Amino acid sequence: MDDVRVCFVGDSFVAGVGDSEFLGWTGRLAAGVSETALTAYNLGVRRQTSSDIRGRWRNECAQRLPADVDRRVVFSFGVNDTTVEGDGPRVDPEVSVENLAAILAECAASGWRALVVGPPPIDDVDQNARTAALDRRFAAVCRSAGVAYVPVVDALVADPVWMQQVRDGDGAHPDSGGYRALAELVRPTWEKWTAHPASPEREAAAPRTPES
Amino acid sequence: MDDVRVCFVGDSFVAGVGDSEFLGWTGRLAAGVSETALTAYNLGVRRQTSSDIRGRWRNECAQRLPADVDRRVVFSFGVNDTTVEGDGPRVDPEVSVENLAAILAECAASGWRALVVGPPPIDDVDQNARTAALDRRFAAVCRSAGVAYVPVVDALVADPVWMQQVRDGDGAHPDSGGYRALAELVRPTWEKWTAHPASPEREAAAPRTPES
Repeated sequence: MDDVRVCFVGDSFVAGVGDSEFLGWTGRLAAGVSETALTAYNLGVRRQTSSDIRGRWRNECAQRLPADVDRRVVFSFGVNDTTVEGDGPRVDPEVSVENLAAILAECAASGWRALVVGPPPIDDVDQNARTAALDRRFAAVCRSAGVAYVPVVDALVADPVWMQQVRDGDGAHPDSGGYRALAELVRPTWEKWTAHPASPEREAAAPRTPES
Repeated sequence: MDDVRVCFVGDSFVAGVGDSEFLGWTGRLAAGVSETALTAYNLGVRRQTSSDIRGRWRNECAQRLPADVDRRVVFSFGVNDTTVEGDGPRVDPEVSVENLAAILAECAASGWRALVVGPPPIDDVDQNARTAALDRRFAAVCRSAGVAYVPVVDALVADPVWMQQVRDGDGAHPDSGGYRALAELVRPTWEKWTAHPASPEREAAAPRTPES
């Protein structure tokens, strides 16, 4: 049984803010994996943009991904980038795209397999349009990098549970039902991705030591 | 409603390794809080000793605890310290004690309120004796620092669910029932601690910005 360790890196949606069951979409994906020994680390942080994440993700993942395991990272961010503050978005789309490309290049250089989940919609039509535009560009970055990308913004705008729970909540985050819907959008790609054997560059297993 | 953010810092037991429901004891505590807006960040990492944690916890918490919220940290570690490798434990008890004292001093200096949960037992009588000895010393460090401490090792050695699930698992980690038992041991102190008003040194609330 493979020892697979996955870091989920991103923003408040990765952290599962608003979910009264404290599972989020990442916990629901992790709990659905039965055939491998999966360790899931949630590294979502509220309010963080792609620039914030670019500055801290690698050190945090390095603490959690030792050389002798199957090492993976799921990224999801972008909604905080498209939030307007002052004269424009918190992060210019050109910079968001550059951040994602740089992160994926560093991830590949570290020998960690990546998967990217696109940014979801909130209760703001204008911001959702900016998020949808960024989603298209993120998809292109992932195609270039050879990394699987799961777009979710269009499907969730049309999902009555997601949109209603966001409105009933703080205007950005759903409760458990919304996160369940997001998890189901990601699940088919997630299942293929976790079933895929470890990458060829994976290092030979080091001697195991007792661990807790 | 207070905006309370709690980082759970520690080892694989904090991460909830072995829990098929992917909640661990930290998720069960967080899900039980209804009267405050609680954000819980899980920063447990497998195999980490108090020395490993001392080296990384502060940067990780600083990313997650902005100045305008009620900032808190729950620490739990020690079992990896008492694991024997080669001639002795991975971390000498003197060093474990020094690490905890240093961590609590840094935490107080950062203005973050702390709570410490003691190390639990595994399926190894000798190691449990070392863990119980460390538990007594951790309790004394916390008393000196004025920080609440929840010992769990004696209660869990006597808990048939915890011990049976550890044996049925990998010899160190229980499944959901064991983590539920651990959460229930911590809950009374946790509830008092989260109900306690924000510390007087808390900074004035900064202007709120949209957040997701």
